Amino acid sequence: MTDHHNEELLGLLDRIKEFLRTQVYPLETDFLRKPFRELTPALIAKREAVKALGLWAPHLPREHGGLGLSLSEFACVSEELGRTPIGHYLFNCQAPDIGNMEILLAHGTAEQKEKYFAPLARGEVRSCFSMTEPEHPGSNPTWMSTSAVKDGDDYVINGHKWFTSSAEGASFAIVMAITNPEATSQHKRASQIIVPIPTPGFNLVRNINVMGDEGSDYASHAEVRYENCRVPQTNLLGREGEGFAIAQERLGPGRIHHCMRWIGICERAFDLMCSYAARRELSPGKLLGSRQNVQEWIAESRAEINAARLLVLQTARAIDRNGAASVREDISLIKFFVAGILQKVLDRAIQVHGALGLTDATLLSYWYRHERAARIYDGPDEVHKIVVARSILRKYGVN
Amino acid sequence: MTDHHNEELLGLLDRIKEFLRTQVYPLETDFLRKPFRELTPALIAKREAVKALGLWAPHLPREHGGLGLSLSEFACVSEELGRTPIGHYLFNCQAPDIGNMEILLAHGTAEQKEKYFAPLARGEVRSCFSMTEPEHPGSNPTWMSTSAVKDGDDYVINGHKWFTSSAEGASFAIVMAITNPEATSQHKRASQIIVPIPTPGFNLVRNINVMGDEGSDYASHAEVRYENCRVPQTNLLGREGEGFAIAQERLGPGRIHHCMRWIGICERAFDLMCSYAARRELSPGKLLGSRQNVQEWIAESRAEINAARLLVLQTARAIDRNGAASVREDISLIKFFVAGILQKVLDRAIQVHGALGLTDATLLSYWYRHERAARIYDGPDEVHKIVVARSILRKYGVN
Amino acid sequence: MTDHHNEELLGLLDRIKEFLRTQVYPLETDFLRKPFRELTPALIAKREAVKALGLWAPHLPREHGGLGLSLSEFACVSEELGRTPIGHYLFNCQAPDIGNMEILLAHGTAEQKEKYFAPLARGEVRSCFSMTEPEHPGSNPTWMSTSAVKDGDDYVINGHKWFTSSAEGASFAIVMAITNPEATSQHKRASQIIVPIPTPGFNLVRNINVMGDEGSDYASHAEVRYENCRVPQTNLLGREGEGFAIAQERLGPGRIHHCMRWIGICERAFDLMCSYAARRELSPGKLLGSRQNVQEWIAESRAEINAARLLVLQTARAIDRNGAASVREDISLIKFFVAGILQKVLDRAIQVHGALGLTDATLLSYWYRHERAARIYDGPDEVHKIVVARSILRKYGVN
Amino acid sequence: MTDHHNEELLGLLDRIKEFLRTQVYPLETDFLRKPFRELTPALIAKREAVKALGLWAPHLPREHGGLGLSLSEFACVSEELGRTPIGHYLFNCQAPDIGNMEILLAHGTAEQKEKYFAPLARGEVRSCFSMTEPEHPGSNPTWMSTSAVKDGDDYVINGHKWFTSSAEGASFAIVMAITNPEATSQHKRASQIIVPIPTPGFNLVRNINVMGDEGSDYASHAEVRYENCRVPQTNLLGREGEGFAIAQERLGPGRIHHCMRWIGICERAFDLMCSYAARRELSPGKLLGSRQNVQEWIAESRAEINAARLLVLQTARAIDRNGAASVREDISLIKFFVAGILQKVLDRAIQVHGALGLTDATLLSYWYRHERAARIYDGPDEVHKIVVARSILRKYGVN
Repeated sequence: MTDHHNEELLGLLDRIKEFLRTQVYPLETDFLRKPFRELTPALIAKREAVKALGLWAPHLPREHGGLGLSLSEFACVSEELGRTPIGHYLFNCQAPDIGNMEILLAHGTAEQKEKYFAPLARGEVRSCFSMTEPEHPGSNPTWMSTSAVKDGDDYVINGHKWFTSSAEGASFAIVMAITNPEATSQHKRASQIIVPIPTPGFNLVRNINVMGDEGSDYASHAEVRYENCRVPQTNLLGREGEGFAIAQERLGPGRIHHCMRWIGICERAFDLMCSYAARRELSPGKLLGSRQNVQEWIAESRAEINAARLLVLQTARAIDRNGAASVREDISLIKFFVAGILQKVLDRAIQVHGALGLTDATLLSYWYRHERAARIYDGPDEVHKIVVARSILRKYGVN
Repeated sequence: MTDHHNEELLGLLDRIKEFLRTQVYPLETDFLRKPFRELTPALIAKREAVKALGLWAPHLPREHGGLGLSLSEFACVSEELGRTPIGHYLFNCQAPDIGNMEILLAHGTAEQKEKYFAPLARGEVRSCFSMTEPEHPGSNPTWMSTSAVKDGDDYVINGHKWFTSSAEGASFAIVMAITNPEATSQHKRASQIIVPIPTPGFNLVRNINVMGDEGSDYASHAEVRYENCRVPQTNLLGREGEGFAIAQERLGPGRIHHCMRWIGICERAFDLMCSYAARRELSPGKLLGSRQNVQEWIAESRAEINAARLLVLQTARAIDRNGAASVREDISLIKFFVAGILQKVLDRAIQVHGALGLTDATLLSYWYRHERAARIYDGPDEVHKIVVARSILRKYGVN
Repeated sequence: MTDHHNEELLGLLDRIKEFLRTQVYPLETDFLRKPFRELTPALIAKREAVKALGLWAPHLPREHGGLGLSLSEFACVSEELGRTPIGHYLFNCQAPDIGNMEILLAHGTAEQKEKYFAPLARGEVRSCFSMTEPEHPGSNPTWMSTSAVKDGDDYVINGHKWFTSSAEGASFAIVMAITNPEATSQHKRASQIIVPIPTPGFNLVRNINVMGDEGSDYASHAEVRYENCRVPQTNLLGREGEGFAIAQERLGPGRIHHCMRWIGICERAFDLMCSYAARRELSPGKLLGSRQNVQEWIAESRAEINAARLLVLQTARAIDRNGAASVREDISLIKFFVAGILQKVLDRAIQVHGALGLTDATLLSYWYRHERAARIYDGPDEVHKIVVARSILRKYGVN
Repeated sequence: MTDHHNEELLGLLDRIKEFLRTQVYPLETDFLRKPFRELTPALIAKREAVKALGLWAPHLPREHGGLGLSLSEFACVSEELGRTPIGHYLFNCQAPDIGNMEILLAHGTAEQKEKYFAPLARGEVRSCFSMTEPEHPGSNPTWMSTSAVKDGDDYVINGHKWFTSSAEGASFAIVMAITNPEATSQHKRASQIIVPIPTPGFNLVRNINVMGDEGSDYASHAEVRYENCRVPQTNLLGREGEGFAIAQERLGPGRIHHCMRWIGICERAFDLMCSYAARRELSPGKLLGSRQNVQEWIAESRAEINAARLLVLQTARAIDRNGAASVREDISLIKFFVAGILQKVLDRAIQVHGALGLTDATLLSYWYRHERAARIYDGPDEVHKIVVARSILRKYGVN
């Protein structure tokens, strides 16, 4: 570890670890058993504690109230926060808000920053990102039907989105819509537009039942219909036709965040697995951890998690140095590699727990359900593998 | 297929298939979205339809109102019913009732049969089987704490059970309890005792949250505390000390039932996967099914499901001929082999569906959650592998 | 087993088993350590013994000196013979001669049968099949460069082949060559032509070094150049343009033969693994077979081999009933399924043996090297998976 | 890469790469097709070239004629050298000599260093390490039968060893033998003793046939019988009873060497795979590399190799900082992790090459055969996994 971490960062990580262990882990049982909405008062209190400790918004520059960390430093923080399903939320660096903060900061006008970024950075509001459409595969992000047509000073938006995560309770959505259908490049047709909520025509149809759970509030994934939804043209984020480019920009660091969060989950699951193996008796005096198959799972998980972390941190440092565009292949590579390890580690941890692992007595069952999506969202494994391979084969002369 | 199926059986299977497709599949959306309890009126109506069609209780002898099928014939029926999560229930051959019917029929007194078996066979009541204890691993079934002590004409039962499936709404439980703690063989210490519900001291603590879902009624898994729960000694099933032997007897055919149900699930998931691959477009005119990775998953799944079915049916026929004791190794072998294939097929089917596969738009997400247990219940994979290997190594002279 | 085997067949299998165990296994050490050529005297003697026992050429009709077995019966024999790398050879049912016998019998003229089939069936000569070309992928069998051009009464053949197995010492080759380059269907361009050896212009360049071993005689794979190689047009096998169809016909049963031979190899490797696990001590008194990982490999291998056998036998019976064309999908399916299991079982058996498994003290190292090809020859896994998937997807309306 | 490499090291690696590419790769065909012995004149010439370039013995301190690299720097060199099977040999850092140099340098007397270390460091002689015994599992290194009994000023050694690699042509062996059978700790019973070759009683029985190949000279693995083999007691290396401790000391860096060599092999295999995929046509104009399965193998291999390298380098740096004892768990972890990846990458590269991959046209077949041992030598995967797991479980309170 000391390879990659300076003293200051290590101190920060220790403080976060301690806070999570003492202040946040005790909330997890409620998180598993109650609607998210019921937790919000407790979560608000904890967020105040985070602010009081000077740990708020670790991803943001200091001038915006954050810790001013580099991406690779934040990656280490993200791993720690990932150990608990409410970690990122409490530190105000949860998806999709973190991505929205990043693009508002990079592309927003002064007015947009004041109106949308600032309250988000302070944690006063939440937001959502409305891109995926049920009729089009997420693996082909330039193929979409939602349109934004100019009418007077406004855009009039029509379209059908889903997996607009955290829309319930959000103050605004950033929506991807085709504004330039005639553009020759299919990568130049869409724009990102800010839609305040409520706006007439922004219709939240339902929270989708995902893995048996509709969720609520922040912990939900909405189906949304945009029906003649009218917003002023000043709500355009960046320039017309840049929607896809901005989305891509968002995804590079976004995948580092996800990967490190998954590594945090892996570490917690690993800890649960070892801890249970070390205390559960198979017969009087004979520990579960004495079983060779359990030992193999422990060893393989340890190797895979360690390898995954090194790969992600290396990529994060490369982004810090040279920007995400320079390591597009590596970003795809970590996405499928770590998601695969996450699934294996969770599966082993559950198998070690037996029936207990299926219940809400641990976090394992929750993650097993909700992180199956890790191999799908932000591009399925298969797409990332193709991206990597094509990039490599180009070096061998294949176009 | 025709290898193993006579004409009569094929006719029966066709009728069942048709009934499921037209009468049962349409209920599945409600099954996925509503509490089980709300479905019961509709399910009762369908059960009447099953009776009217002469398809009721396919596992039972004709003299008890069933179809008089052999185990291997019933296995084929079980596969068909397994294609929908409510199939077995509608035909009154659902676990745990099917196992309880079997052991009551084999070991019950005339009075027990009339009082407990008959209404169960008619589908008027439900039952549960109370064996697993949270404090002891299911992999070591002879290690338990629940005791039944004689007091006058009664047994007084004390103990802590969980995963007593379908206890909510059941009319009676069959409970495993230590009656002969002094027996030299640990396999001779427990007995099975019928506990009518309600009986004072039979305390259903809660339905366990399993994979995020507490369930209700038939679709639930209870934690139960037996606290000075008193039942007459005439409620003993079989003889004292035979509890473990009867449980074993129950497990042989029980694993055939599970394995064939899983194969039914695999077939349905396979069908969903192929059907989606054959219609979902990746880009205009380019089908998902044109992707080589999807094709590999289809081919591998087809091979594995076919292989699994043959192995289970061969085992079922061996049980028909020579009894379960003759193929104990094979029963363990199919248990882990088919459960492993089930998980792989479900995982691939979800990956093919992408985000849609996580929602309640298909059965995949339900099965992904609830059949993770297949590798755990009735003995985890690891235990069955050891059983198989030890049995084989004995032939090589290892004791 | 008894499921699928009649009494007569069981008796035959027992006699073969006994012969192999007592007469053939003792030759294996020489097989592993000496050039094949040096073994031929001993092998000729054993072939005579096979004839004397009335076990010769089990695949051939009785009128041609064989046992008159159906394909599914021969499949069972093939498994037994597969347990030793010289089994098929000793019974004169070794590839490529078995395939050549089959197509000569089905398509040969009376003269061809007398001249080429008869001595082959009697085991007096050997033959080879010259199809694969180094410049073209085996996965695309219709793409080839070798041509046979009519000139007077002859064909003049030019081309470059490799993996013409057993060419060294063969009396004739059957060569695939383009005779009808103008045919609209690419499946109608090639013909099969018999080339006696020696014929001027049939130039055996070298035996290819395969897995470190050039081999010799029967146990070799030649690179062959056809350079103005001239044979009479009467050497055409079947009709012009039928070459591909005949090759396909050969492949159906051929894949059953291979698959059952692989299962024989699996069984022998399994036996070696169990036997070693049952006697090797890890420390005084502690057997290798007491290790849980070894037990898992034993159990998993047992399940996979059993499943593979059932799948292959089912396919063989379907071919017996309805011909190979009716189960083309199943034939592809068993090809990749069994080859994959073969590789896993061999790998586990070697790992159990440790360093010993790498040496020539067992057959494992030989098979590990030489059966890596199983996933490649007769169509690589990937091609068979595509064949299966496309066939399935057609049922879902995909063309 | 630049993360971990300083400018100087990068320059060195470039020079080595260039030398290998231009001077060494051209020798590989001969290496694959001829006995090692026949290559020695050419190899000696190349060794002189290495010396002339100032690249000799990169692992040795400058005062002993080496490059004075740290372990982590040498690890990077070792990866480069591993890309060709004769790389390490040409730079005089080949196993087992490198290990023998290390322990002679650390534990040898002045006289031993002059007599044994110095000519080895200069590349004038070769040596071997005689530890593994056929009758005892390598996984239990303290269980051995070879004994060295004091008699006058000598040790008289008796025992049976195998896999004494490179014994043929070696000038001396370092043999592990029990000198203190009465020691209470089984880790204190053995000593390492230098045996000059020839010495009466040092009997090289044979070169073992490993994966079909007896090899010769450096490229061989001998069976050796020590029969009253008498050497002076001054040939003791280190102190009596320290044999096991010295062997352990040797293994830490030794595993780094192996792992980085394997990564070099992986990189070469990866390069062969991509290069072939980028030029082989499946049909006119359609490249093998356009197949999605090939793309998946490329992407997965890239991820795994990158991850493996980071893990090994991190461990090497930890050894540089704190010694091997501090990271015993990590050394075990990389051993099985990288060996597993090596096998997967080689397997995929062969499958991409099809039949060609089985031949001696590429290095793949050689490595496939000879590096199957990677999962066995220096401790099989299973043992390393147990070492890792037990070490982890100790932190959870398990003894």
